[in-house]
Amino acid sequence: MKTINNSKSWTDLSAPVTNKMVHWPGEPEVSVCKLFDMNKGGPANVTILSMSAHTGTHMDAPLHFIKNGKDISMFPIDMMIGPARIIEIKHDRFIPLEEVQQHEINPNERVIFKTKNSSSDWPKQEFKRDYIYLSLEAAGYLKEKKVSVVGVDYISVGGKDNGKAVHEMLLGNEIWVIEGLYLNGIKPGLYEMICMPVKIKDSDGAPARVIVRKI
Amino acid sequence: MKTINNSKSWTDLSAPVTNKMVHWPGEPEVSVCKLFDMNKGGPANVTILSMSAHTGTHMDAPLHFIKNGKDISMFPIDMMIGPARIIEIKHDRFIPLEEVQQHEINPNERVIFKTKNSSSDWPKQEFKRDYIYLSLEAAGYLKEKKVSVVGVDYISVGGKDNGKAVHEMLLGNEIWVIEGLYLNGIKPGLYEMICMPVKIKDSDGAPARVIVRKI
Repeated sequence: MKTINNSKSWTDLSAPVTNKMVHWPGEPEVSVCKLFDMNKGGPANVTILSMSAHTGTHMDAPLHFIKNGKDISMFPIDMMIGPARIIEIKHDRFIPLEEVQQHEINPNERVIFKTKNSSSDWPKQEFKRDYIYLSLEAAGYLKEKKVSVVGVDYISVGGKDNGKAVHEMLLGNEIWVIEGLYLNGIKPGLYEMICMPVKIKDSDGAPARVIVRKI
Repeated sequence: MKTINNSKSWTDLSAPVTNKMVHWPGEPEVSVCKLFDMNKGGPANVTILSMSAHTGTHMDAPLHFIKNGKDISMFPIDMMIGPARIIEIKHDRFIPLEEVQQHEINPNERVIFKTKNSSSDWPKQEFKRDYIYLSLEAAGYLKEKKVSVVGVDYISVGGKDNGKAVHEMLLGNEIWVIEGLYLNGIKPGLYEMICMPVKIKDSDGAPARVIVRKI
């Protein structure tokens, strides 16, 4: 069997998790703090994490918005690895149906949207109310096209007014969601992607590590 | 470029993260709880995590025991993917030099030890004081052989009495450590492995997702 050819280098799409980083309003602050600190005489450095499962670069499981839906530990391993297409969106308020329709979307595709969100270093900044989100029309189109994974470059795929509906449209149709992808400097195009969420049982989401390389 | 051949299926070596799962004595309890719960009238399910960065299947960065050492966000992407050898250890108290020496260990190898720890469903059980750990002599040998990664099947690579010394021997020599691998039912042999820790800046460790397939 061919093993993974590692000659072409990978790029990390994961936002660094940091103390007090941006988080969804209404969720507790992200805390990354040392229980033991060698610089303060501790026997070792031991970091304690306290945060929403939906922090930074993370995945949403159907359970996030679907009662008794699949939890994040059920994300199939085979779906963690494979081609992904990064599509650039020009619209400056949301991801409109018309722009998505310009691309031929195929069944089982992993589709990632790069928007104006990626023009700022958002993981280090305060929560921005005017982030670019997926329109419900575009979500419905992706559902019709039977994509397998949708990824976005801010911490929610849906907007303030359509968040519940967009999540339900995707997660209710077994489309898994990656949020908080760090796409600054990444060119649109076809990539090979590995996306691995932490295996948290019964959880609606989990922090994930995501890497890509050009195909 | 050849993309990853996904025809042969992967096996998950990651222990599920669960509420109140086993943790290192002296570290706070693992908490995986819902801030919002649809079964209790919540608008969505939203899980909050609170735990040591050294929970379940996780990686140790040099910073865990080396002042100003590399943190877990510096684990090189190229080291996340590649061959790994799972070696079975018969000794029932620790991993002795003599058993490790029976295997030809090569520079840059990822070496994973499967011990008696994997005969119990340890992630669901109380902390066990008599877990099998790496002897300092075997750690020194792995350092001499210049391996790149060492993995073990309990939540610490070192024992009660040699924990600090074993960690320093490995982490102080740029050998990265995977702890808490779930190897129940896994056969020894040569595998291809993907090991991706959450990218936590300035952290001494991070939960990781680890998968393998036979080469």
